[in-house]
Amino acid sequence: MIVGVLGAGQLARMIALAGYPLGVDFIFLDPSADACANSLGEHLQGDYNDPRLLAQLAERADVVTYEFENVPADVAEFLASHTQVHPAPKALAVAQDRLIEKAFFRDISIPTAAYAPIDSFESLEKAMSTIGWPAILKSCTMGYDGKGQSLLKSVDDLEPAWEQLAGAAGVVEAFVTFNREVSIIAARNVSGAVVFYPLSENIHRGGILRVASSCNQDPMQQQAEAYISCLMEALDYVGVLALELFEVDGKLIANEFAPRVHNSGHWTIEGAETSQFENHLRAILDLPLGTTTAVGKTAMVNFIGGLPATEELLVIANVHLHLYDKAPRKGRKVAHATVRAETTEQLDLLVKQLTTLADQVDDS
Amino acid sequence: MIVGVLGAGQLARMIALAGYPLGVDFIFLDPSADACANSLGEHLQGDYNDPRLLAQLAERADVVTYEFENVPADVAEFLASHTQVHPAPKALAVAQDRLIEKAFFRDISIPTAAYAPIDSFESLEKAMSTIGWPAILKSCTMGYDGKGQSLLKSVDDLEPAWEQLAGAAGVVEAFVTFNREVSIIAARNVSGAVVFYPLSENIHRGGILRVASSCNQDPMQQQAEAYISCLMEALDYVGVLALELFEVDGKLIANEFAPRVHNSGHWTIEGAETSQFENHLRAILDLPLGTTTAVGKTAMVNFIGGLPATEELLVIANVHLHLYDKAPRKGRKVAHATVRAETTEQLDLLVKQLTTLADQVDDS
Repeated sequence: MIVGVLGAGQLARMIALAGYPLGVDFIFLDPSADACANSLGEHLQGDYNDPRLLAQLAERADVVTYEFENVPADVAEFLASHTQVHPAPKALAVAQDRLIEKAFFRDISIPTAAYAPIDSFESLEKAMSTIGWPAILKSCTMGYDGKGQSLLKSVDDLEPAWEQLAGAAGVVEAFVTFNREVSIIAARNVSGAVVFYPLSENIHRGGILRVASSCNQDPMQQQAEAYISCLMEALDYVGVLALELFEVDGKLIANEFAPRVHNSGHWTIEGAETSQFENHLRAILDLPLGTTTAVGKTAMVNFIGGLPATEELLVIANVHLHLYDKAPRKGRKVAHATVRAETTEQLDLLVKQLTTLADQVDDS
Repeated sequence: MIVGVLGAGQLARMIALAGYPLGVDFIFLDPSADACANSLGEHLQGDYNDPRLLAQLAERADVVTYEFENVPADVAEFLASHTQVHPAPKALAVAQDRLIEKAFFRDISIPTAAYAPIDSFESLEKAMSTIGWPAILKSCTMGYDGKGQSLLKSVDDLEPAWEQLAGAAGVVEAFVTFNREVSIIAARNVSGAVVFYPLSENIHRGGILRVASSCNQDPMQQQAEAYISCLMEALDYVGVLALELFEVDGKLIANEFAPRVHNSGHWTIEGAETSQFENHLRAILDLPLGTTTAVGKTAMVNFIGGLPATEELLVIANVHLHLYDKAPRKGRKVAHATVRAETTEQLDLLVKQLTTLADQVDDS
C-alpha cells in the first residue's frame, strides 16, 4: 500500500513514522531538496502544481493526502479526478479561505466571533462600527502561525493594518477575550466511523502554538465533539480533522479548522492509545480506527527557532523528543517534546522544565 | 548523527523508527535487496564481510551496531578498530558460542543448567551419565529459534541427535523443567548508566517465541536485575542486552543472552515509557537513558509464517500492529501485535483474540 503525501515537512515525517508499522510505503511531493520527510520515502522534488509530478503521484499512490491546507484548488481537483484523495478538495477549499470558513461554520450552526468581509478601506471602517474594538484584521488566505494578522485597538491601527493587507481579500473579526484555547481532533474513515480525541488545551504566543496539554474528562468535551461531528458530516470528511476553539464563559466559539493532522495533537503519539498520525492513515485507508483514550496526563512543548542540546532534554524524566531534522530559523518549528506524568503537579513541573529550555533558544 | 547497522531486518527497522525522532540517520549493511529496513535509510547491499562495504560503513557511520549476534568475529574486530562499535566484539564472541556463553555465566556466578561439551559420540554417551535424562543436544553456534537442537529422552535418541549435529561442536544441557520462562532487558550507555525493564514472561512453541507479557512488580525482578548487571559489567557492555531465564522453584537459571534488542522486548514500544529500541540508540550514542516504567499491562503476540488480514487485527481494541514488510515463509516472523489493557483479565482476553488469529495463519 502506497500513500502519496503533498508536502514532506514534519507532519509528513510523523505520518510516515506511524505508517511503516502498518505496512505503508510513502511517496512525497515537495519542492525542497532537504524536506524533512524525504528520507522516509520516495521524494518527487518539484512544485506542487507540476503536472508531470502530480500525474506520477496520482498513478503510483493508492491514496493521496496532504500535510497542509494551502494546496491549489486545481491541484486537489486534478488528483481527486485521477486517484483517491482524502480529505476531499472541498475541505481544503473551505479551510483555505477564512471568509468561506466562517460562513461555513455559521451555516452549520457552529458559533464564531462576529466578523465581516473587507475589500476596501471603507468597508473596514464601516465594519468596525458593528464589530467593535478590539478586533483583528486577517487576510482571507495563506495565513498560519499568526501571519497576515493585525490587531486593531483604535482608529489609528486601521491604516497600517489595511496597508499590511496589501490589496488581498480580508476579514475582520471581533477579538475574543477567551478563558482558554482548546482544540478537538477527530478522525473519520471512509466507511464513516468516527473517533474523538480528548480535548487539547493550547497556549499560543505570538500566534504560534507553544504548549498543548491533553484534557481529562473536560466539561467542554461533549460540545466540542458535537461541533466537529457537524463539521465532518457537512464536509463528508475522511481523515484527521482539527478544530480550534475558544472557551468563553463556558461556551465554545470556533476559531478555525485544519483539514489535516495538527500540532495540538502531537501529544497523542505518546499520550493516546493510538496517535493522530496512525488514525489519519487508518481513516484514509478505510481501516478500523484506533482507540483514542488518553494514556496518563500528557503535554507537548514546541521548540521554535532553535533547539536545546539533546542531552539537556533527554535527561528530563519521561521526555520524548521529536526532532524534525530542520535547520533552525527564526520562528520556525524545529522540534517538539512530549512529557507524560501520573499527576497534574508532576506534569506541570516537567512542562516548566521544558518551556524554560524552549524559551532560552526561542528567537521569535 | 549517523548510526550504521549490520543487518536490515525487523530489528533494524524498529531501531530506525525509534531513531528518526532523535534526529538519527541510518546506513544498513545487508545482503538482501529487499531487507525490510532498507527504505528507512541508506542500504549498502552485500555480504557482511565485504571489506569495501565494511570500510564505507566504518567511515560514514558515527557509531555501528547490529541486529544479530552472528557477526563474524573478524568483521566485528575490523569495525571496532575503525570506528565506535557497540556492543563491543567480546559480547558477540561470547553470545555466538553456547559453550563459551555457559562458561561465562558460570565464571560470574550466574547459575545455568548442567552442561557438557560434545565433540564425539563417545563424549555424548559419557556426558549423559552425569547430565541425566532428558537433556538437549545443541550445536554450539548458529542456533536460533530452536534450530540445531535435539531432545534426548532415551539412549535411542543419541545417534540421530549426534548425526544431526553433523560434526559441529556441540553442547549437551540438562532439560530444565521450569515453572515459566522470563527475560530481562537492560540498557547501559557509554558512560555506564544502566536501566532495567520490567521482566517479560515468555511463551515459546517449537523453539519460537509466541507471546511475551510485561510483568508488574515480579518477585523475580531483583534477582534478574542482579544477574544482568553482572553480565553487563563483565562484558563492559554498551547498548541493550537481553537475558533469557528459566524460573525453577523460585530461582532463576540463565538460558542464554542476546547482545541486542530482543523479540521479548517488543512490547516496550507501547508498554514502557521508553522503548528498548530508543534506549539502545540512547545507550550507544551516550545519551541519558529513558525511563523504563511500564505503561499499563502489555503483551505482544508474534505472527509466524503468515499474517491475518490487517482489518481483522486493527478492529481489536488497543491493538498496535507492527508489520515487518517481509514475505511470509514457513516459520518466519512476519509481524507482531501489542495490546495494552488496564487489568490482567482484559489483557488475557485480548491476547486470546490475537493468538487465535495468529494460530490460524501459523504454518510452523
